[in-house]
Amino acid sequence: MEVALNLDPVSPIALYRQIYDGLRGGIVGGRFEAGAKLPASRALATSLGVSRITVTECYERLVSEGYLETRRGSGTFVCSSLPETDMYASGVTVEIDPQVESYPPVRLSRYGAIIDAPIRPPNPPEMLRLDSHGPDVTAFPRKLWTRLWVRRMQEDPPKLLQYTQEFNGSTELRTAVAHYLRMSRAVVCDPNQIIITSGSQQALYLAARIFLDQSDCVAMEAPGYRFAGRIFDSQGANILPIPVDRNGMQVSQLKKHSDKAVKLVYVTPSHQYPRGVSLSIARRMDLLAWARQAGALILEDDYDSEYRYNERPLPSIQGMVPDAPVLYVGTFSKLLFPTLRLGYLVVPRAFQDVFTGGKLLCDLQSSSIDQRILTDFLTEGHLEPYVRKMRIIYRNRRALLVESLQKHFGRRVTVYGDHAGMHFLADFQIDLSEEEAFGRALAAGVRLERVYWPACSAVERAGHVQFVFAFAALSENQLILAAERVAGAFLS
Amino acid sequence: MEVALNLDPVSPIALYRQIYDGLRGGIVGGRFEAGAKLPASRALATSLGVSRITVTECYERLVSEGYLETRRGSGTFVCSSLPETDMYASGVTVEIDPQVESYPPVRLSRYGAIIDAPIRPPNPPEMLRLDSHGPDVTAFPRKLWTRLWVRRMQEDPPKLLQYTQEFNGSTELRTAVAHYLRMSRAVVCDPNQIIITSGSQQALYLAARIFLDQSDCVAMEAPGYRFAGRIFDSQGANILPIPVDRNGMQVSQLKKHSDKAVKLVYVTPSHQYPRGVSLSIARRMDLLAWARQAGALILEDDYDSEYRYNERPLPSIQGMVPDAPVLYVGTFSKLLFPTLRLGYLVVPRAFQDVFTGGKLLCDLQSSSIDQRILTDFLTEGHLEPYVRKMRIIYRNRRALLVESLQKHFGRRVTVYGDHAGMHFLADFQIDLSEEEAFGRALAAGVRLERVYWPACSAVERAGHVQFVFAFAALSENQLILAAERVAGAFLS
Repeated sequence: MEVALNLDPVSPIALYRQIYDGLRGGIVGGRFEAGAKLPASRALATSLGVSRITVTECYERLVSEGYLETRRGSGTFVCSSLPETDMYASGVTVEIDPQVESYPPVRLSRYGAIIDAPIRPPNPPEMLRLDSHGPDVTAFPRKLWTRLWVRRMQEDPPKLLQYTQEFNGSTELRTAVAHYLRMSRAVVCDPNQIIITSGSQQALYLAARIFLDQSDCVAMEAPGYRFAGRIFDSQGANILPIPVDRNGMQVSQLKKHSDKAVKLVYVTPSHQYPRGVSLSIARRMDLLAWARQAGALILEDDYDSEYRYNERPLPSIQGMVPDAPVLYVGTFSKLLFPTLRLGYLVVPRAFQDVFTGGKLLCDLQSSSIDQRILTDFLTEGHLEPYVRKMRIIYRNRRALLVESLQKHFGRRVTVYGDHAGMHFLADFQIDLSEEEAFGRALAAGVRLERVYWPACSAVERAGHVQFVFAFAALSENQLILAAERVAGAFLS
Repeated sequence: MEVALNLDPVSPIALYRQIYDGLRGGIVGGRFEAGAKLPASRALATSLGVSRITVTECYERLVSEGYLETRRGSGTFVCSSLPETDMYASGVTVEIDPQVESYPPVRLSRYGAIIDAPIRPPNPPEMLRLDSHGPDVTAFPRKLWTRLWVRRMQEDPPKLLQYTQEFNGSTELRTAVAHYLRMSRAVVCDPNQIIITSGSQQALYLAARIFLDQSDCVAMEAPGYRFAGRIFDSQGANILPIPVDRNGMQVSQLKKHSDKAVKLVYVTPSHQYPRGVSLSIARRMDLLAWARQAGALILEDDYDSEYRYNERPLPSIQGMVPDAPVLYVGTFSKLLFPTLRLGYLVVPRAFQDVFTGGKLLCDLQSSSIDQRILTDFLTEGHLEPYVRKMRIIYRNRRALLVESLQKHFGRRVTVYGDHAGMHFLADFQIDLSEEEAFGRALAAGVRLERVYWPACSAVERAGHVQFVFAFAALSENQLILAAERVAGAFLS
């Protein structure tokens, strides 16, 4: 018997390994049947063009692992029975037919069946992305961050590297975040109410997972934040879309659905996503009163309240009344840099344990090193000057992009929202459908973000085309160019 | 009207802020009723012992926010109606009675209701922890890691800091991991089949979430890995415990449950947790054949296969046949350091998208920086020498602890498992219950780990007391001391 094996002499995989894998795969896959005799090691070595010792070593290993056996004087054979013969008494054999199917017919869970494959469009370098909500990371003080990082990594003993029991986040970071939120957002909390998460995405996921069962009702702003909607959808929840006007979510509309047993209300009160308006005080109080009556929780996402260019932000809903029925969510991923996977939840005391347990089940803990560096960054006073600096940069970028669009579109463009944040919504009166406009902008080298309407709640907007412009990460030149390209695409 | 506010002069919160919060809280909470007149700013300043400008600024801010109004010549009043009077036509007001309840009566989801509060026992510094499965991080090449880290942080543009579209992990890391697994574990995969996760905890969570619905059946080894059992429990799955003997999971027992429609089988074939044995080749093949027939998936957790002290590990089940019905799980958190939250899944091609989508929903992405540094560590060849070094250290620690226990306990201790890994299971023939023994060891300054029996499957073991000894993170002196303490506790 001559044995042909596919050997690839330029592969990074050693020849020994390739031969071993080929033989083992052949035995297990049924190519070499039980009891079959293999060629003598010298013969196989010659046929494969390798040294005899290579083949001998493969044979020896396969013998020691129970795939092959040597019979004195007659050669090397595929084992006819493996050590535990009783296991094989049942007659079950592994049948392999690679043609049949490439995976077993295992049913996904309801959750698994709902999950979409993420859309990852190609991203050529010349494409200007107005759909990416990252901050401008070029301005981030990397040297400072590096200095803080190196300092902590030198500490001895290196306990930052070890497992922690603080699944909800380190005490130091939770203390610093509680202080920051009390001061800057009037959030009423102590450090025990804080759960450090892997970005606000994990915070929203945990809130949904811990409160929503299949068919439970969750209300959210329409239009709203796509990823929140996707998380709620994936839990099998029913989304109740609540319209948004210039004072934010229309709480009166929410109250009309007393039959729906709404459990969670997702709201972005500081800077509504994507419309950019603030939820008025009257509506905040109304929402709080409603939530108490209805036994619902408000999921307050305060994702970019640090960036207001004309006035101070309204304080959080969470802090408006004692023991507010609010899960408050925020993140440093966006404020500092996205790959810092650190966000947080502030939860009512009664829910501290369940969120800590939920975080533990999901991924045990967030990086202790990143938590420590962020704590140092906060407690040593680096956040405020950085935010002040970025506030000016983003304010100017926003103004420049609005101006550039108005220059090209005149009265045919309307920009919605407060002077705030890292994005705005623009409405174009043009003779194109939203689909056409999106495609033309893309062809012109600008990727815009479409408005997300939860539960297909979009109303007819004949002749109106709206897109989100996430401008923060683009330079002034890029923004001017983007406006030119959009104008060329929409008006030509 | 005199207004008393609780001001704390030594608080880190500015007096301005304390006054503002007090007034706003009073208005929202109903203490200051609609239309009520507030004291003149000078009078309030005097009564509070602060400068007038501080009070004026508070008033002005509250006016601008719609809580207060000034009436020319008559003073400052709490707004009788907030801007959106129509919102208040319903007559709903916020009623606050802090005595009533500290949180709203919101029902948790089934999942939320199952989650336990994590147990976090006090951990005095003199306590020797044999229940902590961390590696020895003091030997980790922190200087090298820091050098790699600093080098990447200096790159310009700093794209590592920005959002990525590679939710399943960076192409570079997935390529390096695929290469590593092909070489060292005979895993058959290409980089697209790899999902980078936040440690193996997230890998197990995702597998459970994506395949298990309420009441679905999942089989696992008994005794087994506690956190896997907790994840399955939290999904509402029914756990089918399968006994373990010296050849690993008794696959023949699994096959008896054809009525159960098992969807997942959790197995630790390289080094069974906690017994420390390997799953025999015959049983592996039997398990593969059974899984294909039953339409089940094997969840192969290969958590510490790098550490075998006498022989090479058996190759993975995943690579034994083409297109194996296997979800393969591993982690670098344990191999390098636990707070590096990087593990991975290798999934059949058909499930690449659903796992990528699942990872995205959970926490968007893992840290791009950590992924990049790990890639550099792997591709620049630092892993192998480190593992070789640690293999010697852990082998010696294991031998020392076994020896020390045998010295004290003689034939009354039996150590189970292969010469491998970072823990072993020891069985003590003593006149104590497991509960008593655990408590005595704790009182003597050693925290042991109890054996986990999924679905309460423990068989009666009269006179036998078993504990897991996770020895890797303890120094040789600590191990000798731990054995002494355990002997003192169990034998006195």
